[in-house]
Amino acid sequence: MLHIEFITDLGAKVTVDVERPEQVLDVQRHYGRLGWTSGEVPAGGFVFPLDNEPDFDWSLIGARAWTNPEGEVMILHRGHAYRRRELEAVDSRKLKLPKAVKYSRGAKPTDPEHLREKADGEIEYVTLAIFRGGKRQDRFAAPQGQATGGGPREARPAQATQNQANQPNRPAPTQPSQRPAPRAAAPAPAEDDTPF
Amino acid sequence: MLHIEFITDLGAKVTVDVERPEQVLDVQRHYGRLGWTSGEVPAGGFVFPLDNEPDFDWSLIGARAWTNPEGEVMILHRGHAYRRRELEAVDSRKLKLPKAVKYSRGAKPTDPEHLREKADGEIEYVTLAIFRGGKRQDRFAAPQGQATGGGPREARPAQATQNQANQPNRPAPTQPSQRPAPRAAAPAPAEDDTPF
Amino acid sequence: MLHIEFITDLGAKVTVDVERPEQVLDVQRHYGRLGWTSGEVPAGGFVFPLDNEPDFDWSLIGARAWTNPEGEVMILHRGHAYRRRELEAVDSRKLKLPKAVKYSRGAKPTDPEHLREKADGEIEYVTLAIFRGGKRQDRFAAPQGQATGGGPREARPAQATQNQANQPNRPAPTQPSQRPAPRAAAPAPAEDDTPF
Amino acid sequence: MLHIEFITDLGAKVTVDVERPEQVLDVQRHYGRLGWTSGEVPAGGFVFPLDNEPDFDWSLIGARAWTNPEGEVMILHRGHAYRRRELEAVDSRKLKLPKAVKYSRGAKPTDPEHLREKADGEIEYVTLAIFRGGKRQDRFAAPQGQATGGGPREARPAQATQNQANQPNRPAPTQPSQRPAPRAAAPAPAEDDTPF
Amino acid sequence: MLHIEFITDLGAKVTVDVERPEQVLDVQRHYGRLGWTSGEVPAGGFVFPLDNEPDFDWSLIGARAWTNPEGEVMILHRGHAYRRRELEAVDSRKLKLPKAVKYSRGAKPTDPEHLREKADGEIEYVTLAIFRGGKRQDRFAAPQGQATGGGPREARPAQATQNQANQPNRPAPTQPSQRPAPRAAAPAPAEDDTPF
Repeated sequence: MLHIEFITDLGAKVTVDVERPEQVLDVQRHYGRLGWTSGEVPAGGFVFPLDNEPDFDWSLIGARAWTNPEGEVMILHRGHAYRRRELEAVDSRKLKLPKAVKYSRGAKPTDPEHLREKADGEIEYVTLAIFRGGKRQDRFAAPQGQATGGGPREARPAQATQNQANQPNRPAPTQPSQRPAPRAAAPAPAEDDTPF
Repeated sequence: MLHIEFITDLGAKVTVDVERPEQVLDVQRHYGRLGWTSGEVPAGGFVFPLDNEPDFDWSLIGARAWTNPEGEVMILHRGHAYRRRELEAVDSRKLKLPKAVKYSRGAKPTDPEHLREKADGEIEYVTLAIFRGGKRQDRFAAPQGQATGGGPREARPAQATQNQANQPNRPAPTQPSQRPAPRAAAPAPAEDDTPF
Repeated sequence: MLHIEFITDLGAKVTVDVERPEQVLDVQRHYGRLGWTSGEVPAGGFVFPLDNEPDFDWSLIGARAWTNPEGEVMILHRGHAYRRRELEAVDSRKLKLPKAVKYSRGAKPTDPEHLREKADGEIEYVTLAIFRGGKRQDRFAAPQGQATGGGPREARPAQATQNQANQPNRPAPTQPSQRPAPRAAAPAPAEDDTPF
Repeated sequence: MLHIEFITDLGAKVTVDVERPEQVLDVQRHYGRLGWTSGEVPAGGFVFPLDNEPDFDWSLIGARAWTNPEGEVMILHRGHAYRRRELEAVDSRKLKLPKAVKYSRGAKPTDPEHLREKADGEIEYVTLAIFRGGKRQDRFAAPQGQATGGGPREARPAQATQNQANQPNRPAPTQPSQRPAPRAAAPAPAEDDTPF
Repeated sequence: MLHIEFITDLGAKVTVDVERPEQVLDVQRHYGRLGWTSGEVPAGGFVFPLDNEPDFDWSLIGARAWTNPEGEVMILHRGHAYRRRELEAVDSRKLKLPKAVKYSRGAKPTDPEHLREKADGEIEYVTLAIFRGGKRQDRFAAPQGQATGGGPREARPAQATQNQANQPNRPAPTQPSQRPAPRAAAPAPAEDDTPF
């Protein structure tokens, strides 16, 4: 027998018994759809192969796609909304980086220090996941015909393809005590796209 | 089988076995009425839909309504009393925020850094919960005819509707070692309204 | 079934299974008599009703009464000795506080920051428990005729009734590496009053 | 019965039941091959006998050998790549050190303070394991004919034998938000050497 | 049923089921002989009665006696070697301390702040255990005729009896990244005295 330790969508610590090791991922999917998460986001974010990005099953980590009022697809995880960013390959003498896709958000004053990443200027980011290199793993794919994890790429609007380096003007959240939730800025949010 | 990890009202770590997933919320309600909590208050507070605020079942998070000696309804959680504040919608060019209801308290010197939110001046707040936007979820409602969670709105006196921005004069606690408990300032507290 | 997580008197992490919820307090009493504790002392100390103070069952939190070589009754908890202090009611324009009884000790360099409370001058305190207001709860009382928790008030000598505000001369421990244990200053401690 | 607490390759907290004590190491091996780890890397790194280094079973700690694009064998552990370094014996008047083999990497801004070790200049290191002195323990050896843990020494290229003190020019990672994964710098990584 | 949570010698988190409360200490002894520990060393170190020192069973806390290359008996605990120091009684007007025996080591940069104790000058210590006052408890004694815990006093060489206050010249470790293990300075360590 195995036991998976979750934090529920309500913040409670709940352990779920699992009969066999091969059921672990499916149980994570099942409860992940409810927003339950297990463990912490690693410093620097989860790392997955780039080829898993198009149909990644976000329920595996308790996240889900969400279209914000401006029509942009974002990923919601524990009440935070992460924006998709495509990072182009870098091939200079000092630095070689393959292309990647990153889901990140501006840091908030309540984020712990070890999760914050300095970008240009004074802006700090927190990364949920980065897809880069590697070999596709089918176990990370969303089940076919299921909306949970398959949506982001298809629905992705043009502005989501900007390179992070080209976004110095995107402001970091400046009034955290008034903007703790991703939908805070929505003047008239539709009922079915609640980030909760 | 599932297992919920609680901190009892006495501070002990007690895990409760639960047969089926659909019982989790009810077991949280049951022990929450005793002041048992599971997990931590998230940084920035719990986030719930605004439409859940009138009949929110505070026992779900181990809290309960309490009328202080001045007749104001407050929410007690782990020995701290939180005051209800209505935040009006903001619709300026720089910031768009829907209206919300927030339960917060002045920060104490013993609060961890990541829970403190800066407000105007030097006052720091700690938020228990914020109700904003979203779609009502009936699973968060207090059972009908039960006093535990249904009281706050009905009993809410006039002063509880002030906007937080209008309260610069409310002093932060200045003598924490002498005021750790919410009822500390009550000259003649009635027996049945103990915050413990 | 429930499970209580203890730290034993030897510092080990041991979980004890309990059949029914109503047995939790008794199991805490049982192991608390051995010095086992569950969970952390909350910041600012445990809060109990004032009327529970005379016969409070200290074994509930893994503590016990102990008479030091000077004949003063103290409360031992996890190797630290806490002194009883009566706090008089305060009723000024700025502050209203009901009378209370507090068990506290001078802070040590190894105490975590969030447990230290500033008092007058540079002295810092750590509080184990404060008894104030509220309504007596019989479940916190020591079983009749049992020495464990019933002793403090009866055995309390005169000097224990000083108000904390009148004790600016009590020095904070200044040589912590040489005074980690409560009995350190005892030149000839009797065998049966070991704080261990 | 025993229970081993793992962090899975996906970061989830999963406990695995084990029937007998003598199975603990084998269960660690089994799940360690999937990248699951139990507990934290101790400050300063794991310490093993020097004679265990040639055939050490890295799956015991959830790590595995990996050949980077430059042909260098590295050890992957929780998404970080560690380089092998041979430390020569030191026998001066102030310091006597036996020879050792150390697996370390440059520190990243998101590494906790207590894991960072200062080296010459401003470079900081994080050590996964150090092999030094002691007596070989066969229980740490990789099963014969198994690729998981037996590879490092045989495949080790010349540059892996440099003493750490001779590498002042190896730059510390300077753009952590863009380089969280060990294969980041690989312009055309082969499919089967993904660090994930 | 009870459950003891250990950190194994490999750093893994393993819980062991125990049928009856009276078996807890013996199970700790059993796994402690393998270097498994449960819980943390308390700030300031474990406190035991002075009369338990001669035959203290170090396996109770996952430690064991070890003779270093210079012939000095030390206590090994989680990879650190602690030196025995006899503290003489102090009886001045400002301070009264009974005699004690302390096992401590120089602090390392990777030690957490709350475990470090300032001594004379800039030297910082970490204490594993202090034996002082109190009444002997037979449950802490090593089983007769067993080498594990009974050795230290008999094998103790002369230099181990120095008072800590007389050792200002003992240098604190200055090259931590090169000296993480107690046997580091041994030019020709014998096989059977590995600290691992």
